[in-house]
This record gives sequence, structure tokens and C-alpha cells, in this order.
Amino acid sequence: MSIRIGILGYGNLGRGVECAVEANSDLELVAVFTRRDPESVKIATAGVPVVNVKDAQDWQDKIDVLIICGGSATDLPKQTPEFIKYFNVIDSFDTHARIPEHFENVDKAGKESGHLGIISVGWDPGLFSLARVYGNAILPQGKDYTFWGRGVSQGHSDAIRRVEGVADARQYTVPVESALEAVRSGKNPELTTREKHTRECYVVVKPEFDNDTEKARIEKEIKTMPNYFDEYDTTVHFISQEELSANHKGLPHGGFVIRTGATGHEKENNHIMELRLQLDSNPEFTTSVLAAYARACYRLAQKGETGCRTVLDIAPALLCQQNGEELRAHLL
Amino acid sequence: MSIRIGILGYGNLGRGVECAVEANSDLELVAVFTRRDPESVKIATAGVPVVNVKDAQDWQDKIDVLIICGGSATDLPKQTPEFIKYFNVIDSFDTHARIPEHFENVDKAGKESGHLGIISVGWDPGLFSLARVYGNAILPQGKDYTFWGRGVSQGHSDAIRRVEGVADARQYTVPVESALEAVRSGKNPELTTREKHTRECYVVVKPEFDNDTEKARIEKEIKTMPNYFDEYDTTVHFISQEELSANHKGLPHGGFVIRTGATGHEKENNHIMELRLQLDSNPEFTTSVLAAYARACYRLAQKGETGCRTVLDIAPALLCQQNGEELRAHLL
Repeated sequence: MSIRIGILGYGNLGRGVECAVEANSDLELVAVFTRRDPESVKIATAGVPVVNVKDAQDWQDKIDVLIICGGSATDLPKQTPEFIKYFNVIDSFDTHARIPEHFENVDKAGKESGHLGIISVGWDPGLFSLARVYGNAILPQGKDYTFWGRGVSQGHSDAIRRVEGVADARQYTVPVESALEAVRSGKNPELTTREKHTRECYVVVKPEFDNDTEKARIEKEIKTMPNYFDEYDTTVHFISQEELSANHKGLPHGGFVIRTGATGHEKENNHIMELRLQLDSNPEFTTSVLAAYARACYRLAQKGETGCRTVLDIAPALLCQQNGEELRAHLL
Repeated sequence: MSIRIGILGYGNLGRGVECAVEANSDLELVAVFTRRDPESVKIATAGVPVVNVKDAQDWQDKIDVLIICGGSATDLPKQTPEFIKYFNVIDSFDTHARIPEHFENVDKAGKESGHLGIISVGWDPGLFSLARVYGNAILPQGKDYTFWGRGVSQGHSDAIRRVEGVADARQYTVPVESALEAVRSGKNPELTTREKHTRECYVVVKPEFDNDTEKARIEKEIKTMPNYFDEYDTTVHFISQEELSANHKGLPHGGFVIRTGATGHEKENNHIMELRLQLDSNPEFTTSVLAAYARACYRLAQKGETGCRTVLDIAPALLCQQNGEELRAHLL
């Protein structure tokens, strides 16, 4: 029998979950919930209904796990504590500083309703968090490094689009190779923000701003933008809309989590643990992680667990379609 | 209150566990058990008794977790099912093909005695297994690659020492850089044994064999040795005992687990997940992993769990000294 999955929200993440469900033979998509007019939402899976989110409660007995595909800024802080009243839920809440508060809200609502939720599932938070926790547990005397990229930062791309005269933009976060090498050498360098990442911007200007004076102003406004760019070495490339559409349409991302630490009575032996992700599609990889944790959520809920969990609380074997015996024989 | 650790066997692994206990403030070493004359075993930690293994049962109430540091060939298949009768236990059993059988034996004995055991803890099996399981769960349609090295293979070094005329030897397993690059490129290459690793041998000949004829014979015997070397490109370097002792004394190791897989309705997006370990000391890193899982073993045993587990069954948060709230605030 399949695990019955619902999707709430049909943007990049919702579409990614749909792909991921398709890729896992024990998962079955049963409904997509939307705040839009359901008639206006065409999904890729034949025969699966699109339902107004207001009617979601009617689906309580037909869905094993609801994957909530909203944004972290305003959607998830409301949606996850709300929908755990009716469903076991998964989200990809990624505002690190607000995780403790979100966890408490979901935990309380889940315990009250008797449902289980797993929050902050994805790659950071998510797989990168796992790498940090395994690294800290195994090398308690050590140092953590997280690098992001090469990949598209949607927040930074949006910030550039708000500059006057900009028609479209893509921003790549790029880890500095020499900083990575310094970390991998085991030297435990102290690295500033500027030393770890550079920012590459591809910018399309509106026709009426397509002159040297305006482009110089736009470049300066980008490079000096507080919080987003001023602490980084930033390069700005002006390109045409055609070039942006042709070469910068994807949402690749990735990065590195490196834990360095020493062992031995004299701390004479150095060790380096490194997780690297190279992702063609940030949303599709994130949702592949969501699908695996939906399986774990279902299994734990079946055992009667309620409240809130994160990836740190979930035993790896629960994520796989194979049972324990198969995993021990083939993957251990 | 500290978690009270016992060590069974005081070789490379036993000494490594001793270091790892020292590095974790919530672990406390209370006894080392040995098959040798306890008087002959000097350990690094002041005030901790060395006890004949025959008297281990007397320590049942004084030890929370016994870390068994025997070899996988003959020690652990007997020791782990035996000592779980009296203790919660951890081992680093690493004969992949025999894990299912070892698991069953430890599981049965643990359930009977009411103790918990975690087997096959280390980096392969261990962290590499985790990487494979996370990879398979998240990218179910993909391909696994495991590379080992650059590092010392003790089994291969021993095999060289058995060749007539060899006084001492060190063998390094070396991953082939071009194979790694082919995997990282996302091309999903099919790689033969020869294409993945090379073997570098540093060999000291006995004085009476130190001539060109004998060295040519020794080199040929090594390179054609079935199972160990014949399927690999092997290089043999003859060096002096002084050089071996000066430059090849350590036990470095490491390797790579890479999962490649595609997502999207047309499988149009490729993703690469890569775990890399670079370890100055294979035994000290292995025992650092053992120490972290000893903490998890204690916590689960306190909750009444019995039988056998592997790293795949253990939630990451259980490995860390920090509690869930601290982990969510700082590492998630």
C-alpha cells in the first residue's frame, strides 16, 4: 500500500514534490491544495485533483502526509501549526534564527491534535545540518565551515531587481576556491565574509537605462547595497534579456560543509570531514529530501509519535524504501 | 553524571577509544579489559584499572557501555554476542558480507539479556554507510560510488610482508583522480576495479635478498598476487627500513562516497552528493565515531531499548553531547 501524499502550494517546491513522488514507487500523490482558483492550476500528474485549500480538512482521512510548500517568511509560520491540526506534515522552513520558535509552535499543535510534523527539511537546513551534527559529535574539538554555491540566490536576485532601471537579474553565490583549499589543508583558518564567498551578478537593464551613466550607477548601487553585497567582492555583468533567458534560467545551487578536528593525546592527528552538494535544481533536490522525510514521518506517525521533529531526530533507515534487513545487506 | 565507558582490548582501537573518551567531557573511562597479563598493560589514563577480561562480569554494574575493540575476523563474532549478556556494547565489525549474521547473533543475545548493542560503527561501515543511505533515500534513481584512500590498507601491507624476502611493507590505496572527476561530472561512468584505485607499495627487503634478481622476483610476486594486487595498477618502491619508519609510520586513510542521481519529469536535472574523509589516523577517527555512538547507546538503553542496532537506526541528535534545543538553535 502506498503512502498517500498531499501537496499544499503549487510553486517551484510543489512541482518538485510532484516529481519526487513520481520517483518513489511507495509514494502516491492524492491531492494538490492551492490558494488560487483550482481551475487555474494545471498539474503534471494525470487524475489528481487540485483542491481549494479551504476544503483541505475534508481530506483528513485520505492523506497520510501533507507536504507544505510555502515560503518561510510568512506562509510556513502560519501554515505548519495550522495544518498539523488535521494532518501529519513536513515543511522546509529555512529561517535559521526562527527555527526554535517554529519548532515550539508546531510541537504544541501536533501534540494537541495527535499528529507528527517534521520541519526545516531540505539541504540547509537539512543535509547540511546533519553534516554539522555528525561532525560535531565525532570531532567535538574542531571547527565548522559552511560554504554555499556556486548557485543562484533568489533573495539576492530579487534585491538587484529592486534597483531602479533593472529589468531582470540573476545572482550567483560563489565559494572562494582558495578559502576552501585553506580549510581542506587543515590549517583551521579564520575567514571573513569577504574571504569565503564572492557574488556574481547578471543584470538586464531597461531600455531607457541602457547607457554608460545609468549602468555605472546601477553597478555602484548593487555593489554598495548593505547586507546583501557591501561585505562581498561583487562583479556585475550587464547582459541582454535573451542571454539571461538562455544561460541563466536554471536554479542550480550547492555548497560544502567541512568539519576539521584533531584527535590524539597531543591533538597530533588532523581529520577533515566534507559534505559537498552540486545541484542542477535547488527546488527539485530540496523536494527530493522532503519526499524521503515524508516516508519517515508516515512510519513514525504509524507508531504513534506526535509533535515536532527535525532531521536531527530521524534515524536514517526510516528514510529509505528498503527495510532494515535489505539496508544492512546492501548499503551498510 | 558521566557515561561510564569500558574498553575491551588495548590495541590501536583501544588506545584510540581512550583518547576519544578524554575528548568528550560527558564520557568517563572506568576500566580496560585485556586478555594479556593486566600487569603488562600500561594505559595512558591515570587511575584507571586494567582488568583481566575473565573478571569483566564483576563490572556489570559499574559500566554503562562496553566498547569492544577486537578484530572482525575472529574476535568480534564471538565477543560481541558474548559480552552483550552483561553490558550494553559497541563494536566496529567491518566484514561487510557477514554483517547480517553478526547482527542476528547480537540482536538475539541482547534481547535475551536486556542489553543494547550497536555494531559496525566506524567510517566504512559507518559514516560511508550513512552517506549511501541518505543518498539512496534522496535520489532513489541514481548511482553509488565509493572510493577509498589515499590511505594505508593494513590487509594489503600484511599480504606484502608474507612474500619471501620482505622485511617490512606499507601499502597505500589511492583513488584515481580522473575516475573521481568522471563521477563528479555527472556522467555516471561504469568503472572497473583497475580504473578506480591504484596501489602503491613501499617495501623493505631483508639484507640477504637485497639484489636486483630478488627484488625483481618480489616485485613480480606482489603485482601478480591474486585478489590483493592482480586487478590493480600497482607500483612497488624499495626503500630502507629507516625511510619506512620515518615517512610511512602513520595510518592515514579516508575516501569518498558519491551519489549521483537525476530529478525532473524528464530526469533533466543532475545532482551530486559527495562525502569526503581525510584522516591522519584511521584508528583514532574510527574510535571517535565509536565514542559518539556509545553516547547514543547509553541514551537508548536508558529508554529501555534492547537488541542490536546499526548506525542506520540511530537518530543523529543522539550522538551529540548537546540537547535537542541547543542543536536546533546552533547546528540546524
